[in-house]
Amino acid sequence: MTTIKIEHLNKHFHKHNVLNDINLTFKPDRIYGLLGRNGAGKSTLLSIITGLNFTSSGNVMIDGESVNDNCGALSDVFMMSETNMYPDSMKVRDIIKNTAKLYYGFDKSLANRLVREFGVDIKTSFSKLSTGYHSIVKDIIALCVPVNVVIFDEPTLGLDANHRELFYSELIQSYSDRPRTMIISTHLIDEIANLVSDVVIIDDGRIIVDGENEELLKNAHEITGPENELDAYCDGLNVIGSKKLANLKTNYVYGQLNDDRKVPDTVSINGMDLQTLFIYLTSRDEELFDEEETI
Amino acid sequence: MTTIKIEHLNKHFHKHNVLNDINLTFKPDRIYGLLGRNGAGKSTLLSIITGLNFTSSGNVMIDGESVNDNCGALSDVFMMSETNMYPDSMKVRDIIKNTAKLYYGFDKSLANRLVREFGVDIKTSFSKLSTGYHSIVKDIIALCVPVNVVIFDEPTLGLDANHRELFYSELIQSYSDRPRTMIISTHLIDEIANLVSDVVIIDDGRIIVDGENEELLKNAHEITGPENELDAYCDGLNVIGSKKLANLKTNYVYGQLNDDRKVPDTVSINGMDLQTLFIYLTSRDEELFDEEETI
Repeated sequence: MTTIKIEHLNKHFHKHNVLNDINLTFKPDRIYGLLGRNGAGKSTLLSIITGLNFTSSGNVMIDGESVNDNCGALSDVFMMSETNMYPDSMKVRDIIKNTAKLYYGFDKSLANRLVREFGVDIKTSFSKLSTGYHSIVKDIIALCVPVNVVIFDEPTLGLDANHRELFYSELIQSYSDRPRTMIISTHLIDEIANLVSDVVIIDDGRIIVDGENEELLKNAHEITGPENELDAYCDGLNVIGSKKLANLKTNYVYGQLNDDRKVPDTVSINGMDLQTLFIYLTSRDEELFDEEETI
Repeated sequence: MTTIKIEHLNKHFHKHNVLNDINLTFKPDRIYGLLGRNGAGKSTLLSIITGLNFTSSGNVMIDGESVNDNCGALSDVFMMSETNMYPDSMKVRDIIKNTAKLYYGFDKSLANRLVREFGVDIKTSFSKLSTGYHSIVKDIIALCVPVNVVIFDEPTLGLDANHRELFYSELIQSYSDRPRTMIISTHLIDEIANLVSDVVIIDDGRIIVDGENEELLKNAHEITGPENELDAYCDGLNVIGSKKLANLKTNYVYGQLNDDRKVPDTVSINGMDLQTLFIYLTSRDEELFDEEETI
């Protein structure tokens, strides 16, 4: 049972604020979806939590001990990262063996089963594997390490559909055999939407959503109808996006509806899925760079 | 209008048959989903079509001209590949500029618009971009090149959900502005299921599906009911997989149903989506390697 508490965390690179006053608690034994666009600050946040990077100010506490002051606090956290950290020529078997030596209690029999299920050729050197198998080897290690907090950074990058399904089902199995905190950072939001208990969305260095998955979706609505009636009904609601198709318009609303207001017969209200909610909450004008810059 | 015809294509590496008697026609101006598991032979097939690799036997004809005999036939085919082919230090702007010089008719104004929409920093060197932006730069180039056949190999690898949606919508827009053959090879099958007109599935070096998307799904059924009634109804049908949940069983059936047979009231028939169909058609016992091999 390990709690990670992040307080007033800031991180600057040169003059750029990568992370802005992050306050966040990862409670024990829950499965978090950590979502964010490319460049939102997810990887920086994860690297700070795992002691690979420093804060500019603020604190990361693991069970009350600051990560900055006490590296021992980190022994309970393991990150499967998108970056490859293994020597190119090292064979898969040796990578797993060496990790098992470092972590007393590493689940070797699970590793052997997963290696067979995923069809990993353990005699091959790591560098010769495809993108998908790089992810798979790192996922297998992360599932077998005996820590209380395991972080998956893009665990399904390059995996085919069958292997993604297998990974999700093994992750659930592993969690139910040994409940612990899992943090999954991924762009394939649809596929983890039914798997995570909690959702954290980071956008442009700030936490914009932090809550239970189920509660979140209770406040996410797709409301469709003829434009005039629809917009009259949605007046005052938090419309985060909209779409038109022929005579019908859909407003995407995040927040409570007005229960006092009658829903017109022509207007229908449905739930919004997590990926759609994410897209509308984090969409932006893409013109980040000088308009004059052309090719 | 370009037709690619592949006849009795075989490819061996050492003693391994990577591609087995492939016969396939890519008709002009259609959008193909080329689907396969990791290691199925997709990339080898694409590298042969684009002249980057040789056949062991058989032929690839582009508008009647053999690729082996005539490199000119290839000038009409462009592949956006998962592999990075650009010098590490080259700036994005120069990569796009150089490609534009090679292809007379390259759509510069589209490139400029897409660079802004996707927020690409064109002053950065290619190697400093993230996995997602590597894909984006290659996608932009592929959309702007004035060829009749454009091949996308994992076009959304590393893209966040917003950028994937933007890519799909720009691809459709580009196709409608200038119809041409598009071949999309991807693991994110759900996301391209509504976008492709034709589906080719390659498994273990063989073509196992080749047909129109719509026709394919007409033959893909999820049939659910109590086990006994369900299995009696499905007797003789092509059941490619099944699942049990409490008292209900689902059989996944690929092929025509028996219209003479009455569907029991307790049994319901629904369509199967493309990703599920793919997973069941290509699932296999994963124990490819020596059972004795352990860590």
